[in-house]
Amino acid sequence: MASRVKQLAVLGSTGSIGQQTLQVVRAFPERFRIVGLAAGRNINLLARQIDEFQPRLVYCEEERARDILAGARCQLVPLEEIARHPEVDMVVIATSGKSGLMATLAAAQAGKRIAIANKEPLVMAGEIITREARSNGAQLLPIDSEHSAIWQCLNGEAQPPAQIILTASGGPFRHYSPAELEQVSVEQALSHPSWQMGEKVTIDSATLMNKGLEVTEAHWLFNVPFDHIQVIIHPQSIIHSMVEFRDGSIKAQLGYPDMRLPIQYALSYPERLPNPELPRLDWSHLRELTFEPPDFDTFPCLKLAIEAGRSGGTYPSVLCAADEVAVALFLSRAIKFTDIARLVREALEEHEALAQPSLEEIMAADAWARDKVQQLATGSKPC
Amino acid sequence: MASRVKQLAVLGSTGSIGQQTLQVVRAFPERFRIVGLAAGRNINLLARQIDEFQPRLVYCEEERARDILAGARCQLVPLEEIARHPEVDMVVIATSGKSGLMATLAAAQAGKRIAIANKEPLVMAGEIITREARSNGAQLLPIDSEHSAIWQCLNGEAQPPAQIILTASGGPFRHYSPAELEQVSVEQALSHPSWQMGEKVTIDSATLMNKGLEVTEAHWLFNVPFDHIQVIIHPQSIIHSMVEFRDGSIKAQLGYPDMRLPIQYALSYPERLPNPELPRLDWSHLRELTFEPPDFDTFPCLKLAIEAGRSGGTYPSVLCAADEVAVALFLSRAIKFTDIARLVREALEEHEALAQPSLEEIMAADAWARDKVQQLATGSKPC
Repeated sequence: MASRVKQLAVLGSTGSIGQQTLQVVRAFPERFRIVGLAAGRNINLLARQIDEFQPRLVYCEEERARDILAGARCQLVPLEEIARHPEVDMVVIATSGKSGLMATLAAAQAGKRIAIANKEPLVMAGEIITREARSNGAQLLPIDSEHSAIWQCLNGEAQPPAQIILTASGGPFRHYSPAELEQVSVEQALSHPSWQMGEKVTIDSATLMNKGLEVTEAHWLFNVPFDHIQVIIHPQSIIHSMVEFRDGSIKAQLGYPDMRLPIQYALSYPERLPNPELPRLDWSHLRELTFEPPDFDTFPCLKLAIEAGRSGGTYPSVLCAADEVAVALFLSRAIKFTDIARLVREALEEHEALAQPSLEEIMAADAWARDKVQQLATGSKPC
Repeated sequence: MASRVKQLAVLGSTGSIGQQTLQVVRAFPERFRIVGLAAGRNINLLARQIDEFQPRLVYCEEERARDILAGARCQLVPLEEIARHPEVDMVVIATSGKSGLMATLAAAQAGKRIAIANKEPLVMAGEIITREARSNGAQLLPIDSEHSAIWQCLNGEAQPPAQIILTASGGPFRHYSPAELEQVSVEQALSHPSWQMGEKVTIDSATLMNKGLEVTEAHWLFNVPFDHIQVIIHPQSIIHSMVEFRDGSIKAQLGYPDMRLPIQYALSYPERLPNPELPRLDWSHLRELTFEPPDFDTFPCLKLAIEAGRSGGTYPSVLCAADEVAVALFLSRAIKFTDIARLVREALEEHEALAQPSLEEIMAADAWARDKVQQLATGSKPC
């Protein structure tokens, strides 16, 4: 049935989630068709993707793309135009950092199904995005493994969750002392024990900033108060998260760490599709699942992110922007691993927050925080 | 709203599950009303329950009950009459052994909601009961913690499960050698490490017969082939069972081992009710969940039960009857722990099975197996 083919736009198609989304699409050509692709700077990969998937609509951040893609039978358009285009049934937000914010908002206002992997749009502007989605009949479908787990556990339940239990691998530096953390190299921080991800999110996982962002994301996606969201460390990354219901019953979703499963679930929902490429848990080899409480003192980013989310207003934007700049500085070896948390904290402390900000105020807070962190980093390290 | 009060009949009200069902009813007097109670031989407890819950319909296996209950404002009626009575919305089958079979069938034919804790009716006559339930619009709602877990995980899923993963505590004799098992006392076998249950099911848990019966029960309840039902040992009894879907995603249901949760879920479904009496998992104390494959050689009852279920026909009735008699012989110290499996196996081996048996043929196989086990036990142990 032609009507069953979902027409997808993948924003951030050359990133880790974008590429895995295209793997899923490739496995089900009768189910999904790519009508839009958007990428940042990886023009060569984008050109290959255009060649394979023949999208009608393309966006590329890089100016040179105009020349390179001139021969292709596609139209270069602004990012938001893809997100709201009438031919697009579902928009996959696989961008990173704040770059997906305006496109997510455009998709929400156009009433699209939005499969969202990019945390920052919801963290920075969760209130605006969820309000626009509600009033325009858009659906927000999580792709993050944790939020996909929660969403799967909520399936068919008549009542809201009593508690969300977000699991965290703990990253590569679980049990490190603050002194050991100070010496961490970029290479060490990029070696995640269980997940293969992009660089920004890998560093955020190592600082536990990522888990803090996920708490705020869960708050907005599932309308659950911060006090009812708990984080536990689960190093095996097999239980992707859990939901406790008001009778005390808990449901969990499990699987090997592989982003293609939550991506595919968001794409195929409410159906589940058999995909031989996806790994299956082997209970004859799985021996134990362990849990421990998170160490908020050694990993201050977790606490900072939850507090910023709880305080709301422009705090989450400052947190995201400060973290984005700090992580970039760390990756360029300009600051130490532990400076990421310090710079984010200092930016939050110096910020004069606004409650219920407009989108312009959110973007202004973002810009302020970027400057502030650059300034703090330069100030603290005379060249 | 008066219409929201569910009118319940609890068959086996003085047993472990029956008493816990009444605890749940006691916690929600505005939701549930007891209209029928049925018990075996515990007349004193039944009299107190009648006094508290004022049911209109009562059954008692014990003849003396007639005199003792004469003063109460209730009617003594046959068990099946309670199960099919028009005032009863839901029948809780909390009987043990084969005693609930005819009542379950009566409730199925009367199109009731049937909350079922008693395994034997489904194991012995699963095909007949599920067929009658289907054609009369009856609903079978599991109370067993494992089947409740599976049912909860299937909630809202559009497609049948790809695999069911039944967890088993492993009982008190996990890692015992066959030689050690031979020396096991009644007291040891009655000390289950995680669950408080009736005597019969506690012994069945120690032999793993219980888990084998549950495989067959799961087969009938969820219409899943035997090859797609896997048993794994999970000593902490926190994960009550799991379902794997066709995309490889797994959902699990978790909680402390407490039968009141699955009982309450069956009673309140599709709602969940907050009940402060139910314990909640404390993730700050839970440190590990472990798993291991079952040892089919040391615990032959598990294999015997699965094979009997898979073979079908009258084999499962012979298994249940043989086990019921063998467990009673063990509890009366007439045979050794390891004789339970031996007697069940010998009865199955000597049985000439019928395919697609009628209810009469099922009952005849049951009677044959009871005699056979008595005979085998006496023959092997000259008095």
